[in-house]
Amino acid sequence: MAHDATSVAVLGASGYTGAELLRVLVDHPRVRVVALCGNKSAGQPATTVFPHLAGRIALDIETVDAVAIAERAEVAFLALPHGHSAQVAKDLRAAGGKLRLIVDLSADFRLRDHGVYREWYGEHPCPELLEHAVYGLPELSREGLAGADLIAAPGCYPTATVLPIAPLLRARLIEPSPLVVDAKSGVSGAGRTPSLAAHLPEAAEGVRPYKVAGSHRHTPEIEQALSRIAGTDVVVTFTPHLLPMSRGILSCVYAQPSDPGRDPGAYLACLRSAYQDEPFVTVLEDSLPDTAHVRGSNRAQVAVRYDQRAGRVVAMAAIDNLVKGAAGQAVQCMNLALGFGETEGLGAVAMFP
Amino acid sequence: MAHDATSVAVLGASGYTGAELLRVLVDHPRVRVVALCGNKSAGQPATTVFPHLAGRIALDIETVDAVAIAERAEVAFLALPHGHSAQVAKDLRAAGGKLRLIVDLSADFRLRDHGVYREWYGEHPCPELLEHAVYGLPELSREGLAGADLIAAPGCYPTATVLPIAPLLRARLIEPSPLVVDAKSGVSGAGRTPSLAAHLPEAAEGVRPYKVAGSHRHTPEIEQALSRIAGTDVVVTFTPHLLPMSRGILSCVYAQPSDPGRDPGAYLACLRSAYQDEPFVTVLEDSLPDTAHVRGSNRAQVAVRYDQRAGRVVAMAAIDNLVKGAAGQAVQCMNLALGFGETEGLGAVAMFP
Amino acid sequence: MAHDATSVAVLGASGYTGAELLRVLVDHPRVRVVALCGNKSAGQPATTVFPHLAGRIALDIETVDAVAIAERAEVAFLALPHGHSAQVAKDLRAAGGKLRLIVDLSADFRLRDHGVYREWYGEHPCPELLEHAVYGLPELSREGLAGADLIAAPGCYPTATVLPIAPLLRARLIEPSPLVVDAKSGVSGAGRTPSLAAHLPEAAEGVRPYKVAGSHRHTPEIEQALSRIAGTDVVVTFTPHLLPMSRGILSCVYAQPSDPGRDPGAYLACLRSAYQDEPFVTVLEDSLPDTAHVRGSNRAQVAVRYDQRAGRVVAMAAIDNLVKGAAGQAVQCMNLALGFGETEGLGAVAMFP
Amino acid sequence: MAHDATSVAVLGASGYTGAELLRVLVDHPRVRVVALCGNKSAGQPATTVFPHLAGRIALDIETVDAVAIAERAEVAFLALPHGHSAQVAKDLRAAGGKLRLIVDLSADFRLRDHGVYREWYGEHPCPELLEHAVYGLPELSREGLAGADLIAAPGCYPTATVLPIAPLLRARLIEPSPLVVDAKSGVSGAGRTPSLAAHLPEAAEGVRPYKVAGSHRHTPEIEQALSRIAGTDVVVTFTPHLLPMSRGILSCVYAQPSDPGRDPGAYLACLRSAYQDEPFVTVLEDSLPDTAHVRGSNRAQVAVRYDQRAGRVVAMAAIDNLVKGAAGQAVQCMNLALGFGETEGLGAVAMFP
Repeated sequence: MAHDATSVAVLGASGYTGAELLRVLVDHPRVRVVALCGNKSAGQPATTVFPHLAGRIALDIETVDAVAIAERAEVAFLALPHGHSAQVAKDLRAAGGKLRLIVDLSADFRLRDHGVYREWYGEHPCPELLEHAVYGLPELSREGLAGADLIAAPGCYPTATVLPIAPLLRARLIEPSPLVVDAKSGVSGAGRTPSLAAHLPEAAEGVRPYKVAGSHRHTPEIEQALSRIAGTDVVVTFTPHLLPMSRGILSCVYAQPSDPGRDPGAYLACLRSAYQDEPFVTVLEDSLPDTAHVRGSNRAQVAVRYDQRAGRVVAMAAIDNLVKGAAGQAVQCMNLALGFGETEGLGAVAMFP
Repeated sequence: MAHDATSVAVLGASGYTGAELLRVLVDHPRVRVVALCGNKSAGQPATTVFPHLAGRIALDIETVDAVAIAERAEVAFLALPHGHSAQVAKDLRAAGGKLRLIVDLSADFRLRDHGVYREWYGEHPCPELLEHAVYGLPELSREGLAGADLIAAPGCYPTATVLPIAPLLRARLIEPSPLVVDAKSGVSGAGRTPSLAAHLPEAAEGVRPYKVAGSHRHTPEIEQALSRIAGTDVVVTFTPHLLPMSRGILSCVYAQPSDPGRDPGAYLACLRSAYQDEPFVTVLEDSLPDTAHVRGSNRAQVAVRYDQRAGRVVAMAAIDNLVKGAAGQAVQCMNLALGFGETEGLGAVAMFP
Repeated sequence: MAHDATSVAVLGASGYTGAELLRVLVDHPRVRVVALCGNKSAGQPATTVFPHLAGRIALDIETVDAVAIAERAEVAFLALPHGHSAQVAKDLRAAGGKLRLIVDLSADFRLRDHGVYREWYGEHPCPELLEHAVYGLPELSREGLAGADLIAAPGCYPTATVLPIAPLLRARLIEPSPLVVDAKSGVSGAGRTPSLAAHLPEAAEGVRPYKVAGSHRHTPEIEQALSRIAGTDVVVTFTPHLLPMSRGILSCVYAQPSDPGRDPGAYLACLRSAYQDEPFVTVLEDSLPDTAHVRGSNRAQVAVRYDQRAGRVVAMAAIDNLVKGAAGQAVQCMNLALGFGETEGLGAVAMFP
Repeated sequence: MAHDATSVAVLGASGYTGAELLRVLVDHPRVRVVALCGNKSAGQPATTVFPHLAGRIALDIETVDAVAIAERAEVAFLALPHGHSAQVAKDLRAAGGKLRLIVDLSADFRLRDHGVYREWYGEHPCPELLEHAVYGLPELSREGLAGADLIAAPGCYPTATVLPIAPLLRARLIEPSPLVVDAKSGVSGAGRTPSLAAHLPEAAEGVRPYKVAGSHRHTPEIEQALSRIAGTDVVVTFTPHLLPMSRGILSCVYAQPSDPGRDPGAYLACLRSAYQDEPFVTVLEDSLPDTAHVRGSNRAQVAVRYDQRAGRVVAMAAIDNLVKGAAGQAVQCMNLALGFGETEGLGAVAMFP
């Protein structure tokens, strides 16, 4: 860690996303974590709340105080509940100080349209910032990330869904509709608050869909991202599932080819071309994505197959929901915003098995 | 067990399907297991191969000998590899004896068209029996099961896929194409032979698709069953996945409504009407299927939702792949074939948690 | 279910023990479940609280009302929290009615000494009943179970610990001290109330001891049972662990041989002799206990080995904590108390895999 | 990675230990991986054998060739089967070249007594090296590691067993016998070769002991390490278990206090004093070890409790069997042997959840 390390604060340090930010940031060569905030666990050492951080984090958790943070940190990562997150972002920006970048990991700045936000989440505390925030999915668009001061880190399902299908949509190899998205997630995506759905005896030996038929809040985010690429309104049928594992999202997207007579190799070629220079995307050719192979890393595995019999394109991706689907991608965005190397602090090999 | 219990033999007693047949059959009030056959484990007590049968099965495993079996058993369940199974069925029928019913749990008699069988499995040892065999999915059609002497127990994926969608297709509430089937299975579906894919450290913390884009052998079986109902050729895009759990299949089917303006309540009403008298199908209204809730039982949970935004029907089912997807359904078919009560021996409550 | 089935009530129908009692009782040929009580979930259908009971239980859950229950049920199973359970037992006995047997699955009637109970659990609501209750571990002692009207079903850890070591202690093959008990449990043992310790992402990929060094409440119960057999005070060091699985307890007991020069075959011979007529105990000779082989069944697997190098006896047992460790054993006790066949309703084969 | 990075080779690149060495070494600031060898997978890219290495390792796997390796690598890590490993070590030393350090992760150089080795493993290919090799458990003894040219990385069970008990033994707070060691391991410890014992449906929902009563090969290694500390022969009863998880070992050691009247705080004080400056050992005070909190890290959590009632000391440790129990500790030894900082390349935070 260099003498002139950038000071960062993590707000929302008692959930899995906050903990994962810490895991990534303590090994980042360009930053120094100066503050952890979390109202629920304020006053406790970080290692009491998360014993796995032992030996690497000596900080205590503080209450969330925008003015104090803005004075001490150049970068603030917000891993707070939606609604609360936007309010804190607003306060941080008002506080000024040395703060120059907010990376928000909640849903608060992902949707550009206030009406859509209101429909899914309720009133927004600072709708004027919605158009200002930059959507931080670098592989889709790095535009605006350099120098950004407010970045919305994408949701885990949208990341796993957009990556395998966006290049095909952009190249007009598939029809923008109908799209079916069937996604499977580990339980950590539901957060650290104990619930019956995440109670091990209930969850450990079964698979279940939830919030089906367009009722999951990541639906409009997926549609917004895909519509922008397609240049037309994209509507998806999105089905999330909970699986008996801690981490990982696998998303399968089903699409109609724009030309059924096309050489099936075109789909793979398109993905390879789109991602050949991407440091965090592996396009698989002979194998298929497996969340076990990206655990703990910022990598996405993508693949595509053409179902000749049915005339349908199947695009798939595997990510770690807490890394490429949250903390890792947020750090990737910070790297781009501050002019660091895009992969700095994010090189860790996936943990397998 | 009555004095006049029907004698049954289980051939293929060293795999999970064979073991599950035993688990069900030893508590069946109308039958007596008189023989277990398995070439790999011949000579060993059944409880050496499967210690969980201790105290309930005193038989040793024998080599597969059609003539000997036909002399001792009225019913033979075949839990053998495809190809081998048809050959044994042919031999059993030739042997005569007291045998009056074969329930085959392999794929050998599921496809009625020899050409289709050949394409997916190779040459069939007795194609003349293909049209003679009765496809044993009672909820779809009980026709022919009473008095049948050769029954093809359906595959696990086809069972979980056909149940939630067949009534909608029959009532013409959905278009016969395009259909997308995204299915998730526990690892026991891959059998008991150790492999890297089922090695716990490889499989325990990830989800992965396999045999995608129409390459899984259950594809033609699903299409055959649905085409018969639809009265027209149905082609599906079928994607199976392996999940980190032992048992269970969850299948999601995505379909276009035949009339987008229809009252969305019609889909649920259709399933409820179709299954109101079925002893093994629960139509869920306020909740969604969960394989953890049908573990060890012959029950299928089905549900349907209409995605109003995208104009798409999502039909779902959860079963235990080894029970309703294999052994339990095979016993259900035997019950119907021999005139027993359909639920005899199959009443066990699911094991949860 | 015969015309003259015995009426039973389950009190505490919203936890895993209550649900498991229902799973066992609905298939019991001699009883009829007439009431389910649970204050938390009163008013709801049993199948709403436990969807896996669908198709087999049509009752709604009632509030706990001793007088009403005593009028309708001959047998009451109490699956309530300790303290509350004893109070309800007292009320049921006072109510009279047709009630003739209470099987309590809480800890309230397991300890015979009020002083010991008070030390570990606090004041007892009806200490006068402590000596009256019969400790229901049939393999240890069937004495008193026939005709009993108040039975204390043993704890899960004590069952798994006492079974493998009691015959050796009784035959004076081992020293009564020092005994070390290292036990491993699935998470369902901690109940259905969501907690961080049982939250899947926290619990799914790790093993941890808890309440070590004599602080777990099952310690005095183990000591009481072993002391009675040994005829002298036995003190154990007991270490429970939570494992990433739903069901099962494996207990390893380490003891000193009373005669190091004894033929090591004596230990196995002792267990075989003790359990040769027991319907629910399998003494393993060439293999070792595995909780996966007793899942869902009332069976206990026991084994013993002599460590020649270290001069130490290692006795082991595997049970399903919810069956032999709770609901199954409670039903076994009812069978003995009411003069039913001991195995009635308890024959289910373990569910494997 | 500096210009003058030390060249290292990993021999045995197709098992979990080899893969874990790669995961650690590619982020080590002082080394460069120049060769991977594995006869089974020779010719394939490393990322074909282990897809999780994608993006970080570009090497192909070579056949094991001692002369070629000794010419290219200064350090060789051997993750080969025992017997084979010693032979390769012998060949490497004979080859000369630039090689200056061998770290062997097999059992071949852990036992100093050829007679003991022969009893447990068979004839040793180069017994003359047994006394030359340095046992690489730095927290026990750093003596000899600086400048060593042949290091035996300890076994996973011995590491987890020795760490919590060694300081107590050295300080004579406990009796050297009898010691009981009850250890629990994730399935990755059994290697990557598919087997029924590690087949997910067999292993995923149960716990089982194996090689009990002094038959596991780690027994003499534990005894050798403890005897050296105690200055007298220590004999342990060691019981390993397989648990339904991929990684992690939890070991509980039960010992008699040398003075039952001692202040119980002395045990914790002893561990704290012994490990206060150790970078990879966390002595827990208010909590207990949990393998989920050290996953993927080189950290060991240790704790001790005194069971006042039974007069017994319970010492516990949790490690990741593939890191502190194998690859991480091997790299820690290399760091010490070559004069690097002990923690270089080993700082990664544990992956939780």
